[in-house]
Amino acid sequence: MRILGVDPGLTRCGLGVVSLTGARTVSLVDVSVARTSPHAEPGERIAAIATAVEDALDAHAIDAVAIERVFAQHNVRTVMGTAQVSGVVLLAAARRSLTVATYTPSEVKAAVSGHGRADKAQVAYMVAKILGLAEAPKPADAADALAIAITHAWRGGAAPTPSTSAQQAWLRAERAARRRG
Amino acid sequence: MRILGVDPGLTRCGLGVVSLTGARTVSLVDVSVARTSPHAEPGERIAAIATAVEDALDAHAIDAVAIERVFAQHNVRTVMGTAQVSGVVLLAAARRSLTVATYTPSEVKAAVSGHGRADKAQVAYMVAKILGLAEAPKPADAADALAIAITHAWRGGAAPTPSTSAQQAWLRAERAARRRG
Repeated sequence: MRILGVDPGLTRCGLGVVSLTGARTVSLVDVSVARTSPHAEPGERIAAIATAVEDALDAHAIDAVAIERVFAQHNVRTVMGTAQVSGVVLLAAARRSLTVATYTPSEVKAAVSGHGRADKAQVAYMVAKILGLAEAPKPADAADALAIAITHAWRGGAAPTPSTSAQQAWLRAERAARRRG
Repeated sequence: MRILGVDPGLTRCGLGVVSLTGARTVSLVDVSVARTSPHAEPGERIAAIATAVEDALDAHAIDAVAIERVFAQHNVRTVMGTAQVSGVVLLAAARRSLTVATYTPSEVKAAVSGHGRADKAQVAYMVAKILGLAEAPKPADAADALAIAITHAWRGGAAPTPSTSAQQAWLRAERAARRRG
């Protein structure tokens, strides 16, 4: 099962693809960051991001899409751009009969690091560890996109029930973290 | 010159098409409201609205698009949906080499009624008057979409309308070719 995680943004949009091969076993398939210039026309920017998302969906035969939920309490202009990007991600997925799961930033942090207030560096470190990478993916948008994909791999219903007690302990810890987050 | 005005929304999206035939002379071409159920999947809803926008762009050989600017000070959930819709409108326009002008609600009210704090009924009344309609278009989303299109017709700088029908035919053919390309 291949999952595309999207860290939505108009200036930088992280696109991370992981493969879920067994119970809680995920591997890196691809990661990239689509970038657009703040000086370009809004329509051009949206179209460039949409094309990158569509290319990722088609190139990697994606089965599921997960995206970080947008909040309105931050910078208004940034949030609007981010919401516009999430709109074109929803559209690209829907036109391929894929649903899009959404996770809050604290859900993503809790899923990969065990606590909902982990900082960027901790999330990137855990993403590298989980995927067996020598280094943390850069920039942060790339690591975040992979973290979102991993979150969906582990929480997204489709995931098989963990069989070992260690995995169950991890899940319990994760749920506790979620409640705290 | 044909202008599509969009009053963006996920539950109701107003789509109004006007034709600018001379200095400040506009006529109604088409008006509709795309609706989706709040109970449907977000992706399905976005895709239904996107299809309605694309159909309007293609069916009426639109030359310019105008949309109401989204503000974040209202209900957060509604604003996110509205911003997502504006994202797919930007995308549909960009893929047809059309730019999208944005106007604030008070700019639209001022353009059609003469003052920025006109209420819905006044805007609808003025839209009917300007377009020579016997009645105000309903629902409000339809009237608002037409008001946005009229605002762009009158303020949109882009307005140097080709004077001869031959020039207009050339422009249309050029755009059609671009779309097919």
